[in-house]
Amino acid sequence: MSDTGSQPAHQAGRSLDPHLGRYAARTAGMTASEIRALFAVASRPEVVSLAGGMPYLSALPLDSLAADVGQLVATEGLTALQYGSAQGTVELREQICEVMALEGITAHPDDVVVTVGSQMGLDMVTRVFCDPGDVVLAEAPSYVGALGTFSAYQAQVVHVEMDDAGLVPEALRQALAAVRAQGRRVKFLYTIPNFQNPAGVTLSVQRRSEILEICAQHDVLVVEDNPYGLLGFDGQTYPALRSVEPTNVVYLGSFSKTFAPGLRVGWVLAPHAVREKLVLAAESATLCPPAFTQAVVSRYLSQHDWKGQIKTYREAYRERRDATLAAMEQQLPAGCTWTKPQGGFYVWLTVPEGLDTKAMLPRAVTQRVAYVPGTAFYADSFGSRQMRLSYCYPTPERIREGVRRLAAVLEGELELLHTFGTVSHRRLSGAQTPTPDTA
Amino acid sequence: MSDTGSQPAHQAGRSLDPHLGRYAARTAGMTASEIRALFAVASRPEVVSLAGGMPYLSALPLDSLAADVGQLVATEGLTALQYGSAQGTVELREQICEVMALEGITAHPDDVVVTVGSQMGLDMVTRVFCDPGDVVLAEAPSYVGALGTFSAYQAQVVHVEMDDAGLVPEALRQALAAVRAQGRRVKFLYTIPNFQNPAGVTLSVQRRSEILEICAQHDVLVVEDNPYGLLGFDGQTYPALRSVEPTNVVYLGSFSKTFAPGLRVGWVLAPHAVREKLVLAAESATLCPPAFTQAVVSRYLSQHDWKGQIKTYREAYRERRDATLAAMEQQLPAGCTWTKPQGGFYVWLTVPEGLDTKAMLPRAVTQRVAYVPGTAFYADSFGSRQMRLSYCYPTPERIREGVRRLAAVLEGELELLHTFGTVSHRRLSGAQTPTPDTA
Repeated sequence: MSDTGSQPAHQAGRSLDPHLGRYAARTAGMTASEIRALFAVASRPEVVSLAGGMPYLSALPLDSLAADVGQLVATEGLTALQYGSAQGTVELREQICEVMALEGITAHPDDVVVTVGSQMGLDMVTRVFCDPGDVVLAEAPSYVGALGTFSAYQAQVVHVEMDDAGLVPEALRQALAAVRAQGRRVKFLYTIPNFQNPAGVTLSVQRRSEILEICAQHDVLVVEDNPYGLLGFDGQTYPALRSVEPTNVVYLGSFSKTFAPGLRVGWVLAPHAVREKLVLAAESATLCPPAFTQAVVSRYLSQHDWKGQIKTYREAYRERRDATLAAMEQQLPAGCTWTKPQGGFYVWLTVPEGLDTKAMLPRAVTQRVAYVPGTAFYADSFGSRQMRLSYCYPTPERIREGVRRLAAVLEGELELLHTFGTVSHRRLSGAQTPTPDTA
Repeated sequence: MSDTGSQPAHQAGRSLDPHLGRYAARTAGMTASEIRALFAVASRPEVVSLAGGMPYLSALPLDSLAADVGQLVATEGLTALQYGSAQGTVELREQICEVMALEGITAHPDDVVVTVGSQMGLDMVTRVFCDPGDVVLAEAPSYVGALGTFSAYQAQVVHVEMDDAGLVPEALRQALAAVRAQGRRVKFLYTIPNFQNPAGVTLSVQRRSEILEICAQHDVLVVEDNPYGLLGFDGQTYPALRSVEPTNVVYLGSFSKTFAPGLRVGWVLAPHAVREKLVLAAESATLCPPAFTQAVVSRYLSQHDWKGQIKTYREAYRERRDATLAAMEQQLPAGCTWTKPQGGFYVWLTVPEGLDTKAMLPRAVTQRVAYVPGTAFYADSFGSRQMRLSYCYPTPERIREGVRRLAAVLEGELELLHTFGTVSHRRLSGAQTPTPDTA
């Protein structure tokens, strides 16, 4: 979580910043959210944070990793500590193709670009495709970090409805028609088909072909973001959109959830011509991804039982998902509804009408539980009755305690609502983005 | 060096790319250079590459580093492998302030942003400040990677003359006036004051205040890029521009040349309000820099004699500089002139009139010596009589052999010129950018 200072700096900055007249137009929209200050409080140990998307790293075999990484420095240090290729090492790109094969993808290592986390992949794809004013379609709700990147390139997000089977094809058709009717250009559909962040739902297999066909018909690229695909709780996987349609899909992958996010190793798989542009864009962004972290991942994949580790993670997250859903069922007040994730990190909770999840966050943090308000996951003003709960990091016991506290907060809010007909809060203003994922 | 495939893919891409109509306007300028293919050849062991800017990592104590990094994973793995702050760890930012103090900078860790190499710092600064069409002033010649970044944001570079004492103040005044007369906006001056890449010259101490005053008078920010400042061959340092003027300078630093580039750890030191924007920009670009590589650098700085290591590097590079200059003096044909670097990695060579360094590169590579043609370091069409020679990586013996081969190439070209009045070459077209630094 970012520490952006304790004062409401975006306001102070507005009036005192001597550089104010110098910024680019895109920078005007970059303002820190007031809820960041709350998340700084939420990181205190006494708070049960259901806000963050931090993987449960205690499941990693640190001692054998330590030995491996030490050996890496001793034997391959001269290359692992040196500049490398902007596209990433051949060895890792080959291994990445093996990882993607688990979800049905056939790919050539030459079409893979290693990035500094999948977030950089998203940034590069947006850089290559989006002019200011271009439209990006995204699920409603969508990943907060993606919304931030689209905004940084002054692209405009149009949300497309989801249900329990993921993106709704008819809603996609309507969104495409509506944008076209406005004379605007859709550059791509951004979608997280598996165990979506934040909604926790998965695009049904039947809909996958349909979504791809609609996009092909409308000459719209598909950007498939798939960090959670191998974390299905029953070991199930779904055919990647890229496996169905190789020429019109740009695929984003990551080792952050299947291994470790602190290495920041992700990748993009793209049609060849697009891949060339991405490499040039990446080169101007970071010269090359760290050779060292790539070498660590390569060694991990070749020396460790990485599939066994994914199974370990999966079981840990299933236990936490179970604890979360059971606690919600038992404790949340009537009128609450939520999704039932079959994998991944997140549950999407809708609270009774009249409540506002962003407005009540300070009260929740005071009562030592944190979540991310739903508004963070919309580029428009929706989501005020929703919140994202992450069960990936806390123990099941802490999760139960967190849900108990959350239930108490909700009960308190409902009591106010029923007594006074309204819930009075100091309104929070400012942009709605917490630190993505790491919040 | 990037492997962008063996076929002239930017040409194939032009005609066959089905995504051609989808790219952003900024992407049109992203084309791979034909000289990349040459650099792929130049990386063969039989070629003496005076092209790359790769540090001489054999000087590192790999065994003790290995032990340290292993211990890091075993004892701090849970944080070093986890998501971190978008701004970078507090520990590393404090250490960075100690490093900067060596060049007279007084700074607070809160104003430091850790980046994925200094290249990402450059990308973030350009993102925050530059709208398409904005002007960036840069030395003539300037760092190829910076030119690539400015181009990616559609900023326009106006070069300012340098001499042996660095940027010429009067030329800076004229450039500012000329841009203003055209009704365009200069967003910042980009300068590498110490042991400049590619020219190898250093801005004199007397000129530093003058340059800062001119920029302040014209309300132009200064972006100071200082990767080589601690690599002065006599152990000398110069006062950083940031140490003279804290409020109008954004400073870029890097561990790539003083420790190891494969970790990709750099930083930006910026006035507080700018720092806030940079953190938000960085978050949308990569979420956070790798916690792991930051932890490796922090441990290195706290456990190793890092100042002693810089001295070791400095001595290795001084020996190579000496070998380079001596060989050039003895072997290059009359009419060649070159700079005399007092630190850093590079010599800037001007060849006799009538020769074209880009056109003759294929012949040089055939004769097993590589360099970077001068045109790579200009945003306009200058530099055809110049080349950058890097002495950082090859041994002194290899350097002597490389310069001997280069001298033979130049003699051959001059002979053709004198015999036929012209040097006939297959002209190289395409963008002029090799892979920056790693080429």
